[in-house]
Order: sequence, then structure tokens, then C-alpha cells
Amino acid sequence: MARLVECIPNFSEGRNKEVVEKIVDAVRKTEGAKLLDYSSDASHNRSVVTFIGTPEAVEEAMVNMAEKVYENIDMRNHKGEHPRMGALDVVPFVPITGVTMEECIEIANRVGKTIGEKFNIPVYLYEKAASNKGRENLATVRKGQYEGFFEKIKDADWKPDYGPCEVNEKGGCVAIGARVPLIAYNINLDTDNVEIADKIAKVIRHLGGGLRYVKALGVKIEDRNMAQVSINVVDYQKTALYRVFEMVKMEARRYGVNVIGSEVIGLIPMGAIFQTAEYYLQFENFSTEQVLETRIWE
Amino acid sequence: MARLVECIPNFSEGRNKEVVEKIVDAVRKTEGAKLLDYSSDASHNRSVVTFIGTPEAVEEAMVNMAEKVYENIDMRNHKGEHPRMGALDVVPFVPITGVTMEECIEIANRVGKTIGEKFNIPVYLYEKAASNKGRENLATVRKGQYEGFFEKIKDADWKPDYGPCEVNEKGGCVAIGARVPLIAYNINLDTDNVEIADKIAKVIRHLGGGLRYVKALGVKIEDRNMAQVSINVVDYQKTALYRVFEMVKMEARRYGVNVIGSEVIGLIPMGAIFQTAEYYLQFENFSTEQVLETRIWE
Repeated sequence: MARLVECIPNFSEGRNKEVVEKIVDAVRKTEGAKLLDYSSDASHNRSVVTFIGTPEAVEEAMVNMAEKVYENIDMRNHKGEHPRMGALDVVPFVPITGVTMEECIEIANRVGKTIGEKFNIPVYLYEKAASNKGRENLATVRKGQYEGFFEKIKDADWKPDYGPCEVNEKGGCVAIGARVPLIAYNINLDTDNVEIADKIAKVIRHLGGGLRYVKALGVKIEDRNMAQVSINVVDYQKTALYRVFEMVKMEARRYGVNVIGSEVIGLIPMGAIFQTAEYYLQFENFSTEQVLETRIWE
Repeated sequence: MARLVECIPNFSEGRNKEVVEKIVDAVRKTEGAKLLDYSSDASHNRSVVTFIGTPEAVEEAMVNMAEKVYENIDMRNHKGEHPRMGALDVVPFVPITGVTMEECIEIANRVGKTIGEKFNIPVYLYEKAASNKGRENLATVRKGQYEGFFEKIKDADWKPDYGPCEVNEKGGCVAIGARVPLIAYNINLDTDNVEIADKIAKVIRHLGGGLRYVKALGVKIEDRNMAQVSINVVDYQKTALYRVFEMVKMEARRYGVNVIGSEVIGLIPMGAIFQTAEYYLQFENFSTEQVLETRIWE
């Protein structure tokens, strides 16, 4: 079996297609790295890229991509609904096959060191790669966003792990880490009132007393004139997707609001789909080996 | 996305293990074909084999297997409880992923032509591959069995689609076809009253005015002292599994009965799992290509 690492960098451009293509091309052009998916969101003004490959190829592709990000994005002009701390905003490495979490932490460190030194960007290691407990949570690291980092970085607690101790005005800062597979999952409401989405987000997420592996916020999707609960399920094996979905439906009822749909952004592990079917169809003794297609992987 | 076809040949030997192994080995030895399951029944004197692979590999494996069947089985000595028309009795090709029914019909035709010419066997195409309406139903095609075909084949209506117009005394005849995947699916009730299960079965099935691709009956599961609606979903793409499940729940309420669980017997195509998650989570624009593991096939 091949050694495979997944990398899901997020960068702060979701409107200019030409720029997005230049950046994504850096992955396409790196041998051994396979671009799986990328999508841009205009209201977030942000793009998410997913690629896999050998640890070496993924590392190389990520540095190549970073170069294009810093060439083409200027944070001094950036506006978007999604929190962000830099042109290259967040870079997680995820072990998929034949690779340990420890190896992904080493990759995060090497890529962080390179980006810090080569592009003069303050780098914060997060989640499993965090240098201390206080940096494990991405939201905590990103708090204050690009604009706030000019002050935050002066705090001794927020000395970067790599790179300069000064925000790069054009490129901002970046969070680089290692983690288990994450599901980016949005739930759409039949209201344009973003405050309702935000209230729901606040009670379903871990931070607000909600589900342990849920991060969420309310956003307005302008082109559909619709409020959305934008969610990250950071460990679907422990906080199942259907549980998040049902909890949002339940909370929405309190405002007389309905869920009109949901969407997975980027990729989803098959286990999250299986657990959904198992729950709703009340499967007894279901084994993934009963699924025809999984047998070809043996 | 990988292209996957399933093939479930039935052959007329269920007692001599050495012969069964020789025949099954032909599948094992074909590169790109993967043997999923095989089982022999002594009283039926018959074996069922399940394998999957690319269309090309499945076609090759099936011809290789046919060669071993005709070398090792002599219908002149065959006795068994299950209806059969030949040494190789019935060969369905089933589209699983990235393959159309039309392609499976083409495979059935090519394999039929090869078996007809190479092994001198009369070949009848059935179900979706049938050359006319009267040959769609397998039971109708097989009627008369091996012994009866010496007369039946003289009828102009029963001229074979491929091969000679004379029964091969050693090998008999064979039915080769294409069909959609079938799901054996049981739904368990919190009652021991099998009459309630039977009433539900009668209204949800096609025969009783229910769902087009559902066959169902009520059965008693003695060891759990429980009534069960035992179901075959013969085309899950048109009659979705979740629709059957929800309809059973709805009908059960009329008797104050609840569904306590459900179970898939044997194999299930991944598409049936995906459609379940799509329905309950109200996915918008979901693509199976978003499922990480499916990308490994590319």
C-alpha cells in the first residue's frame, strides 16, 4: 500500500479565478501530488484545495503552492466573511495511509520552517503539531484575524513557531498543523437572518457548550440571500455528522426556521456516509465489508 | 472513478469440492478480477460465485471459468433440487460503478458469442440482455430444464441467441444476461405478530399496489420472537432503500407497531448507502467523487 498524506490548504482568494488557477496549478505541476478537489466561495472570498500524495510530494507541492499564494494575494485589500489570518490561511496535513500522525507533525514543522524563512511569514503550528496546549485550537490561534495580529504578535504568548516576529503586511500569518480528517459541512436555513444562524452555531459548537468536535459559525450566503450554519466537524468518528445535522434542525425550530439543505465542502471520508445510513436506517450488524465497492481495495 | 462490473455465475456442481475449486480458481487467476464469495449447496448440487472487476477483467474471468466448467461437469450425470439448464447455468452481469446497463448488455453478448462458438453451447440472453420480451424472465427461459431442452430448442421461439441449435449433451445450455443489483433487505418490528408484517409487506410491494421495484413478505424470526418484513429491492436506483424503510415505518404506525431495526443480507452497492445519506442529510450537489476513498480508484 502506498504512503499517502492529504493536505487541505485554505487561501484567501475566492473571487479572482485567474489567481485561483495560478495557485492551484502549483499543485498540478508537482509530480507525485494528486489534486483531488478545489472550490472557491465568493462571499467567503476564500478557496479550499485538497491534494494527496507521498509525504515528500505533498511537502513539495505545498511549498510550491505557498510561493504562488504570496506572489498573488495581498491581504491589505482582502475582505470576506470567513475568519482568516493570512493569504495562505491554514495548512493541515492529514495521515491517510501508511503514514503516522508523528510523520505529519514532522512535515508541518519542515513546511513551517521553509515558509517562515523563504517567504518571511510568521508561522503558528496548531492542532497535533502545536508547540503548546494554547495553540492546539485553530480558532484560538486565528483570533483577532489578519488585522488583529499586528498587536497579537507582540504578546510573548504569541511568538511565532517559525518566521519573523512581525506580521508580513502583504501575506499576513499562517497556521500550519497536523490533524485527523475534518469535514467541512454547511447547513442552509430558510431565513436570511444571519443572527439566527449565528445563535444556532453558538449552541451546537464545543465552545458554546455543544458537541465536543464541532466548530461552527453563522454566515450569510449573499447570492442565495440565505443564512447558513458553517461547520467543521473535526472528528467525525466521535461527533457523527447526522448528530450535528439533527441538532441544527432541533435548534432551528426554536426560531420557526427550517433546514433546507446541507452541503459537504470538499471531501468526506466514507465512514461518515456509512454512519449516516446506519443511523437513519437503524442497521443491525452492518459491516462496511458488505459494501461491494470496498472489496476491491482489499 | 473506477469502472466496476459484478458477475454472479451459477454452475451445476455443489458436491465435488475438488471440481468446485478448479472452477473458482479460474476467477482467482484472472488479473483484475476479484473473487468476493462462493458457496456450494449439496442438495441443490450447485454453486454460486460472486466476483467483481473492470468490465474487461470480468469478461475474461467469466470465459476462463466457463472453460473449467465445461471441462469438469457432465450434465448427463447431474442430479439436484434446483432448476438448471446446463453445466454453466446462469450468468448475470451487473453494473456497479461507472458502467452503464448498455455496457453490461454488450458484455453478455460478447461472452455469449464466445461461449456459444468456443464451447459449442446454445446460449440464451435474458433480463436486460434478452433479445425479446419472452426471454426476459429467467424462470421462463429455464423452463423444461436440461432434460426438456432437447425438445424445446426445436421450437422456433427458442432458437438460441448464440451457439448451435442443438443441446450440448455434456454441457447443456446456458442463460447469460444483464441486470441491476438486487438488495436483500429486512425490516424488524417490535411485535411477534407475523400477520402485521405480512399486511405491511402486501401494501408496500409492487404486486399489492406499492413500490414498483419491491418484493416483500412477512416472516417470523423464531429465535428473536419477532415479526419481520423481508424485502427484495430489485432496482434501488428507482426505488430507494430509504423510501422502502420510511414506508414500512409509516404503515407500521397504523398497527401501533414500531420498526426496531433493519438489516442488509449479503452485499449492497455503495450507491444505495450514498442515496440514504443524501436524503436524510438533505445534501445539495453531493457527488460521490467527494468521498475520499473513491478517489483511490482513479
